[in-house]
Amino acid sequence: MSISELRLIYESLKSKGLKLDMSRGKPCAEQLDLSCDMLNIDLGDYKSESGFDCRNYGLTFGLDEAKRLFEPIFGVASENIIVGGNASLQLIYDAVARAYTFGVSEKSDPWSTKPAKFLCPVPGYDRHFSILETFGIEMISVPLSKNGPDMEMTERLVANDDNIKGMICVPMYSNPDGITYSDEAVKRLAKMKTKAEDFRIFWDNAYGVHHLHDEPDKLLNIISECEKAGNPDRVYVFTSTSKITFAGGGICAVGSSSSNIDYIKKNISMQTICFDKINQLRHAKYFKNHDSITEHMKKHRAIIEPKFNIVFDMLEQELAPLNLGEWNKPRGGYFISFNGLKGTAKRTVELCKQAGVIITAAGATFPYGVDPEDKNIRIAPTYPPVSELISAMEVFCASVKLASAELKQN
Amino acid sequence: MSISELRLIYESLKSKGLKLDMSRGKPCAEQLDLSCDMLNIDLGDYKSESGFDCRNYGLTFGLDEAKRLFEPIFGVASENIIVGGNASLQLIYDAVARAYTFGVSEKSDPWSTKPAKFLCPVPGYDRHFSILETFGIEMISVPLSKNGPDMEMTERLVANDDNIKGMICVPMYSNPDGITYSDEAVKRLAKMKTKAEDFRIFWDNAYGVHHLHDEPDKLLNIISECEKAGNPDRVYVFTSTSKITFAGGGICAVGSSSSNIDYIKKNISMQTICFDKINQLRHAKYFKNHDSITEHMKKHRAIIEPKFNIVFDMLEQELAPLNLGEWNKPRGGYFISFNGLKGTAKRTVELCKQAGVIITAAGATFPYGVDPEDKNIRIAPTYPPVSELISAMEVFCASVKLASAELKQN
Repeated sequence: MSISELRLIYESLKSKGLKLDMSRGKPCAEQLDLSCDMLNIDLGDYKSESGFDCRNYGLTFGLDEAKRLFEPIFGVASENIIVGGNASLQLIYDAVARAYTFGVSEKSDPWSTKPAKFLCPVPGYDRHFSILETFGIEMISVPLSKNGPDMEMTERLVANDDNIKGMICVPMYSNPDGITYSDEAVKRLAKMKTKAEDFRIFWDNAYGVHHLHDEPDKLLNIISECEKAGNPDRVYVFTSTSKITFAGGGICAVGSSSSNIDYIKKNISMQTICFDKINQLRHAKYFKNHDSITEHMKKHRAIIEPKFNIVFDMLEQELAPLNLGEWNKPRGGYFISFNGLKGTAKRTVELCKQAGVIITAAGATFPYGVDPEDKNIRIAPTYPPVSELISAMEVFCASVKLASAELKQN
Repeated sequence: MSISELRLIYESLKSKGLKLDMSRGKPCAEQLDLSCDMLNIDLGDYKSESGFDCRNYGLTFGLDEAKRLFEPIFGVASENIIVGGNASLQLIYDAVARAYTFGVSEKSDPWSTKPAKFLCPVPGYDRHFSILETFGIEMISVPLSKNGPDMEMTERLVANDDNIKGMICVPMYSNPDGITYSDEAVKRLAKMKTKAEDFRIFWDNAYGVHHLHDEPDKLLNIISECEKAGNPDRVYVFTSTSKITFAGGGICAVGSSSSNIDYIKKNISMQTICFDKINQLRHAKYFKNHDSITEHMKKHRAIIEPKFNIVFDMLEQELAPLNLGEWNKPRGGYFISFNGLKGTAKRTVELCKQAGVIITAAGATFPYGVDPEDKNIRIAPTYPPVSELISAMEVFCASVKLASAELKQN
């Protein structure tokens, strides 16, 4: 098809005056409906299982019954878990801020005292990068393969530079590639020698139970691997129920070694009297145990799997025959990572925008917002209703074709 | 009465084996019951008045209808308010952390670059002092009179030392003295010349609607006074519903100048995707407007005023005739500030503890936990049931008498 024909098709889609948003990994209304019974659940006498009135101050580090919900995700006992407020991102920000200002332990120097650097498997999560950028921590991109970060590069870098203080990643159904780190990658991350004694891995297990396949991926327990390898304090694991119950209305948690947890507790005691225990009680009473979270997630899958399939089908039909890009088919998570021809991502996103379809900014999946090959685009299929998703993907495919044709013409 | 008689009385109380806690300003169960209907309120379609689904990500800085609840407390319009999570202490910690690491504006240096100092009206709130101590900010005590902080001392200090970066205080029904700053004090704080351009007042208006009297105190609007005085960015005002609805299960807010609010928003955008909007919606739907908060607070008063009166009566009966101390009779707030003979506070609290009554640690109301005269004790009468409060106050009065007699003997 000629470029003028492609432009005609694009212009006819643009003339529809769409207003669609596929920019963020947000649950759709039907997914949010799944948990609404929780909002009217009988909270009895508002007491925790330990008899504590959840309506009052106290229990700074969370209810035991809420901690237990997260045990299987973290692979640690509840005493190594802190249940926080509504957002794991806040826990992650606070962990970076704490290390930056005070160090990662009583014995270590604040990261601010040296030009700290972080390894960032790419493509990755833009909000992680924003936190590091806020603190002026230099980000070093490490390519992700299907098995996890490039481990040879990772091992070499951390062994030789004691300003490299950490790595931040989504190790299961990664954002946006949907990659789950292999057992080997997890073991090597746990074992590798780091020149910095205060090196920490920020393991954002946001999608640990968000499967889209009968044979879900499995992620090795990095906390116990770190312990076995003699590096017990290397990792902080984060998660939340934002995409289990309510996005921004759930509860979050961090799990780590006893010594890390003790240190975090000291700092949290200065920050707050307690988190919202009523919401923790609501979650604990609603789910009772981790198994019912697993069941609950099947309902999410039933709603969003068809949306992922629509995207796969349309990409397959429209773009595969033309070799205009590659994409992953993740077994879970929230995203489809599309790699177009080099140099087309920004233009594609711009064309989508002009036609009324908002896509995550090109480059957002890389540190500093710069995709060196300008090819990666994150597709977030969960939020729009099916009819809108189809319209949006029509615009997306037409935009990829037009951007690719323009590239070839220049 | 001889010291041995006092000791006999004390020992007989001790032998009861009490286990009572008057250490913190916590609401009692009956107060928490007042708001429980909110937990089952019909949230309709979960949409904000602007049509936003509160169960999903977004509206980072809070619902407009939640912001409006706080307008009369802050004396600013809702666009100058951010509604946060469950704890104003977190907002205060974050504001100190932000100033310490990044400065109070794009133009100013981080407080960490110099040996920062703060003015602390005393006696004051221990958790404020803990935050400052965490960041190594030197605390300078400023005596509180019935009209507010010693303004001559305050003005002199801030005019001459550009390392003095701020003041932190509870300006209405202060913790623990129950003092409300006079109009003159507020105006002088707003007007005073500070050598530091990046000087900030942390105005923790925690008890702005917590009246215990038919003629409640009134606090001048410091935000507009600062604006009038040409120092619009001088003050951050904080509050929460922790002692209106649920302690640790409410919502909090910060109000300030547009330029401060814009700067805070930039930082919050890095910290979180949004706060818990479902709880904001719950509060907004339950209260609808500030007037119904005023009505609601009358119910709180009906529960806690008798408890304050019990404490006043027992102090009056037991200690006034002996001239063993002085105390305030606040028109609102959560505390009674007791000043015993110099050098008796620690011993009194220790005697109470040995007899099974936990009182706030002596010294806690001063920076670094050191009361230079060892005389101030914070009494928190709200939490215990009336019968326990009476028992606890019997122990307290007996302990004051014994500690005073021991002092005179030595």
